[in-house]
Amino acid sequence: MSSGRHFLQIPGPTNVPDRVLRAISYPTIDHRGPEFADLGLDALDKLKSVLKTGADAVIYPSSGTGAWEAALVNTLSPGDRVLMFESGQFGTLWANLARDLGLDVEFVPGDWRSGVDPAVVEERLSADPGHRITAVAVVHSETSTGVVSRIPEVRAAMDRAGHPALLLVDTISSLGSVDYRHDEWGADVTIGSSQKGLMLPPGLSFHGISAKARRASESAGFARSYWNWAPMLESNAGGYFPYTPATNLLYGLREAVAMLHEEGLEQVFARHRRLAAATRAAVEAWDLELVCRVPEEYSPVLTAVAMPEGDDADKLRAAILERFDVSLGAGLGRLRGRVFRIGHLGHLNEPGLLGTLGAIEAGLRLTGTAHRPGGVTAAAEYLADTSG
Amino acid sequence: MSSGRHFLQIPGPTNVPDRVLRAISYPTIDHRGPEFADLGLDALDKLKSVLKTGADAVIYPSSGTGAWEAALVNTLSPGDRVLMFESGQFGTLWANLARDLGLDVEFVPGDWRSGVDPAVVEERLSADPGHRITAVAVVHSETSTGVVSRIPEVRAAMDRAGHPALLLVDTISSLGSVDYRHDEWGADVTIGSSQKGLMLPPGLSFHGISAKARRASESAGFARSYWNWAPMLESNAGGYFPYTPATNLLYGLREAVAMLHEEGLEQVFARHRRLAAATRAAVEAWDLELVCRVPEEYSPVLTAVAMPEGDDADKLRAAILERFDVSLGAGLGRLRGRVFRIGHLGHLNEPGLLGTLGAIEAGLRLTGTAHRPGGVTAAAEYLADTSG
Amino acid sequence: MSSGRHFLQIPGPTNVPDRVLRAISYPTIDHRGPEFADLGLDALDKLKSVLKTGADAVIYPSSGTGAWEAALVNTLSPGDRVLMFESGQFGTLWANLARDLGLDVEFVPGDWRSGVDPAVVEERLSADPGHRITAVAVVHSETSTGVVSRIPEVRAAMDRAGHPALLLVDTISSLGSVDYRHDEWGADVTIGSSQKGLMLPPGLSFHGISAKARRASESAGFARSYWNWAPMLESNAGGYFPYTPATNLLYGLREAVAMLHEEGLEQVFARHRRLAAATRAAVEAWDLELVCRVPEEYSPVLTAVAMPEGDDADKLRAAILERFDVSLGAGLGRLRGRVFRIGHLGHLNEPGLLGTLGAIEAGLRLTGTAHRPGGVTAAAEYLADTSG
Amino acid sequence: MSSGRHFLQIPGPTNVPDRVLRAISYPTIDHRGPEFADLGLDALDKLKSVLKTGADAVIYPSSGTGAWEAALVNTLSPGDRVLMFESGQFGTLWANLARDLGLDVEFVPGDWRSGVDPAVVEERLSADPGHRITAVAVVHSETSTGVVSRIPEVRAAMDRAGHPALLLVDTISSLGSVDYRHDEWGADVTIGSSQKGLMLPPGLSFHGISAKARRASESAGFARSYWNWAPMLESNAGGYFPYTPATNLLYGLREAVAMLHEEGLEQVFARHRRLAAATRAAVEAWDLELVCRVPEEYSPVLTAVAMPEGDDADKLRAAILERFDVSLGAGLGRLRGRVFRIGHLGHLNEPGLLGTLGAIEAGLRLTGTAHRPGGVTAAAEYLADTSG
Repeated sequence: MSSGRHFLQIPGPTNVPDRVLRAISYPTIDHRGPEFADLGLDALDKLKSVLKTGADAVIYPSSGTGAWEAALVNTLSPGDRVLMFESGQFGTLWANLARDLGLDVEFVPGDWRSGVDPAVVEERLSADPGHRITAVAVVHSETSTGVVSRIPEVRAAMDRAGHPALLLVDTISSLGSVDYRHDEWGADVTIGSSQKGLMLPPGLSFHGISAKARRASESAGFARSYWNWAPMLESNAGGYFPYTPATNLLYGLREAVAMLHEEGLEQVFARHRRLAAATRAAVEAWDLELVCRVPEEYSPVLTAVAMPEGDDADKLRAAILERFDVSLGAGLGRLRGRVFRIGHLGHLNEPGLLGTLGAIEAGLRLTGTAHRPGGVTAAAEYLADTSG
Repeated sequence: MSSGRHFLQIPGPTNVPDRVLRAISYPTIDHRGPEFADLGLDALDKLKSVLKTGADAVIYPSSGTGAWEAALVNTLSPGDRVLMFESGQFGTLWANLARDLGLDVEFVPGDWRSGVDPAVVEERLSADPGHRITAVAVVHSETSTGVVSRIPEVRAAMDRAGHPALLLVDTISSLGSVDYRHDEWGADVTIGSSQKGLMLPPGLSFHGISAKARRASESAGFARSYWNWAPMLESNAGGYFPYTPATNLLYGLREAVAMLHEEGLEQVFARHRRLAAATRAAVEAWDLELVCRVPEEYSPVLTAVAMPEGDDADKLRAAILERFDVSLGAGLGRLRGRVFRIGHLGHLNEPGLLGTLGAIEAGLRLTGTAHRPGGVTAAAEYLADTSG
Repeated sequence: MSSGRHFLQIPGPTNVPDRVLRAISYPTIDHRGPEFADLGLDALDKLKSVLKTGADAVIYPSSGTGAWEAALVNTLSPGDRVLMFESGQFGTLWANLARDLGLDVEFVPGDWRSGVDPAVVEERLSADPGHRITAVAVVHSETSTGVVSRIPEVRAAMDRAGHPALLLVDTISSLGSVDYRHDEWGADVTIGSSQKGLMLPPGLSFHGISAKARRASESAGFARSYWNWAPMLESNAGGYFPYTPATNLLYGLREAVAMLHEEGLEQVFARHRRLAAATRAAVEAWDLELVCRVPEEYSPVLTAVAMPEGDDADKLRAAILERFDVSLGAGLGRLRGRVFRIGHLGHLNEPGLLGTLGAIEAGLRLTGTAHRPGGVTAAAEYLADTSG
Repeated sequence: MSSGRHFLQIPGPTNVPDRVLRAISYPTIDHRGPEFADLGLDALDKLKSVLKTGADAVIYPSSGTGAWEAALVNTLSPGDRVLMFESGQFGTLWANLARDLGLDVEFVPGDWRSGVDPAVVEERLSADPGHRITAVAVVHSETSTGVVSRIPEVRAAMDRAGHPALLLVDTISSLGSVDYRHDEWGADVTIGSSQKGLMLPPGLSFHGISAKARRASESAGFARSYWNWAPMLESNAGGYFPYTPATNLLYGLREAVAMLHEEGLEQVFARHRRLAAATRAAVEAWDLELVCRVPEEYSPVLTAVAMPEGDDADKLRAAILERFDVSLGAGLGRLRGRVFRIGHLGHLNEPGLLGTLGAIEAGLRLTGTAHRPGGVTAAAEYLADTSG
């Protein structure tokens, strides 16, 4: 039994703002009535403003995993070859999902400490003169490692290779938190979901869809119904959906994106970068190691921290949760037990971050984890010096 | 701009109780943390109590349409033959979905005024000695017509035919409102969703899964990932999910089923039957015609009413919505414009129903629809005489 | 254990709109911080817009009874004579309160079926050439009887008598529901509270204060602190309060008055008059008697109905509450057990009223109360014929 | 426009838990209906459990200032002498209020850095052999200074003096946060309010009432109505109130006290002491000075910190609010601009406190206030070392 507000500092789901929680508690309305059309059109417009697309977008009542599947079945056919990357746990899981669907995954191994290498993209595509590769699938923000891949450079590599593959980008943990531009960067399908930077509960997922992806969907060979873009886009034109949408989460989407625009998207991105830098100042002061080894790929949304050799990250996380009511992310996959992840995305301000870092510092001490004290003070200093 | 509470009297989504709206506004928690396991296990237990099953059940973050698809892809293989029925619009749509997935649909035509005929089931299965039919798919409560098919009699027909086909039952608009017993009635997959009798916003769908269905899933030939039962049931055993669940709707599920049990499931069913009978008393007093022509198949969840020849149901519905803030269901498919549907399911009491019927009576008068006055008084009398 | 939304059809507290309930659940803020000033100023402005005053207004964290007391202690001195009226239970209670404070109450008897008689006001004041009467205190809407006194005619009578007494008006159950104009009608202190036409929970009360009343307060002899206008108005000038205000109810006040203006105050008043007339159509159809015997004094906010001789109103109310989940108002004071009161004020629309009347009709039948059936149908007809 | 949850770290109103905000948004019910009695009785029982009294208690719809006035007018008569203390701003304001009501205040001067001196109480009462002093009025937790007076020792001093004066205790900022025992400690009237340790929005105030106080009220000479105990206690016996209570805040009271008991009152008090000690560890590390100069009187609910000579506390507070979204308490009265106050009461946990202290540390740096860095790290260490 604890007092005080829980600090949900995993890299998603994130702390849902009260405004959004209240919005999702509006009474459910008739999804075929006239009032609904306004909601539907507004929610789609707001989504597009965050995706930075003037092309198509869809909203699924599903988790992000559903949108991973949907991106593949709408654009590809069984047996198609897809270039995918071992950026970390989520890159790996998406590749597994593609294999389960019967796709031919060309999987580029990775070290779980850096993003997709644009040079490798260019090399692989150049080695495919017959264009057997139909899509390149990249995770923008790899939530298991705190590494952000450089999508514009990946796009440039594809262009240099002169390869017609589609570019599918998972922005599940970056959308609304990290600069991302569906149209300008030439993504074909952008995949997002509700429970990260969009500050919503889980239950919605999204696609931004380029004209090229839309054309590809017309000849895509996967049987599909729930995920099928065609009836969705047709109904969406009037603000409706081909099946019952998750109305109350749409209320939340409208409210959450309104909040992002009230703050200003560029300000939101800058805030994430600044809180991330303050977090790294604390990690450095503690003399602990970052998982991400490429500074220009440091994630604004989460920081994965390696434990000193021999210390158990899960024991630390459990102590911090039980004693101080702060949830941190576990190491995933091959990083299990060896790293903890600090989510600093979504609805978060300076005292929220400092409370998190203070609890981590107390937890490091409490569990006897080797560290130098002063991380939270270092973060406070960084925030003071950059608050202007 | 209207004052007063909107009356959402479509046959779903239904009026979500304040308790449930408040529950879905609880702060989102870590879906991999220890607190979540209690929520997950409790939500699954509560779902099973409503399905009346001791076997497996799953919860998808999706609409009911997703659960339609999921039931097929988990148990069948492309090209399998499925016996389906034109009970109304939803029977028709489900059959279309099955065809889209590449199934071979044997579609039994219907008159949209009565349920699935158990004799026809027996006849069709008996005519299939080679057991090419792998599943019989029935809509329990056909939301477009206000007709409830008699599942136990369908099951008995299947048993009489000695046919091994799976029985798939859509209870989307009946679950939690109409007596239904997954185990006792021998259903293999029961399909439900959140936004009808369960009094939740849309965004969750459900399966009850018999041991036979579970076995069938092991050899089912559809590629699948999001809908796949195996990883779902494996994670569910510990109260978790293989991908991010719609946490806030799970809070609502827990609260809504708790409310059903506080009232008592049998009392809930009796309340629905009584409100439905009061509605029919009003329709009879108005001298209008019911769509359902089989009294033992009258739906406890909605009543579809045929307009007098030449009157436009949509004009009536629009007048009632604009003038009196009551949403009614439209005629669907081939009933478009010719019927209106009164939802009387979910979180509803006598004054809620009488307000709805009063507004309809005012709307009939306002639009000059031929009718006899006194329907709402007839309903009040029925409710007075049965209130004991 | 009941399903469906409770119908709170007493003449206050009224059904609080979801928007207002959500507003009062905003996080409490620092009542001395910069953000608060906006709230305080906005709440006061919105209150004045409903009082229709350009003069002063105050908001107390108290019930309406507190504002009764506050009006007296801010303007009068112990031993002062006040002209008060037996309009019904609330007129009587206010007079008792005045006596408890040591005022000299000149109490005009009444029949509990009609409002304050302007001719009597003129007569009493004319009989007081020495101006011993310092205030005339009138209940605008007498909640126990469903009678609205004609304030402009009372004012005119005072003017005709050339008497300098202050005019204190209790608008507790009329403010926001019935046309009222503090400045134009020449009231000196108008007393209101939150839980009636303003659609808020109880806990706030209000004063509109004329310049004359303000001047009177400077020499008023009652010791006072909590109720004292002077420090309140001084703090209010900056949007603050001299002691901690009921912040969350102020959020609600802001939202509720915004809703009234979205609908339009004149439309709000017209809606109340129309719903009241529909209610009287039902009462007439039932062949029951109204308590109010003066048609131009019929209340738009509630209708008090006399029971047939020998029938117990409380038994009827209990049956309607237990069986149909509708709360009605009891007979108060000397009307106890002999009348029931139907509240039709605040956040209410046609189906809300028809549901109430339908439940009453069912209750009349259920309890064997002598009546003619058809009241709810009569009300529906009235609403149909006036819906344009 | 800020992101993240506001940190309301003034010494009240405090951060209202989501559970309580949801509770106050329940639909308002009939305050004269059968359901209300359960609420009323439960709310009163829960209040008594926190006051630790088996005698009477009342709940006013008012601020704490109202309860100050009510305590005086229920027990005293105009002209009575009351012994009061300059413990700080609130002791001073209460004395002013008493004078406004016409009481004869014997005011003991104080240094605003220590509590009421029991020896002085004994001395003053011993110097009053004629028992002209009718009440001793003490502020338990002086919110302007962070000093807690020792009530049991005050009581013992009164007993040693053999003086019959009533003991009135203001626990507005201590109730529910600091050990307090109305019966055991021999208080006659205990005054509390909702917006501090009880974690509610403002709008309710409370009295615990000894049998002796109750007897005193029978002969008390102040005219009173709203504050009058007699009708309140009479109605309360059945769970009702003599005038409309603030129903929605009562929902909150019930929920908030339930939360306190779930945690355990002794655990709640220990948590407050521990968070206060962690705060003082930070202040000491910063090399700043506490206002309270008596260690056994350190407040568990707030810490007032003196600024270095020449630095402006309000400038610091403004910077912390604008840049880091943390509200701190201002210096009041003669401490204006010279101290800031850190509220650490109510619904608060370790990361909430550390976030507050981190923001203060950043603010000290940002404004160039002379301090030693490391306060937040010192607090984290204290919390780590005492988390067992």
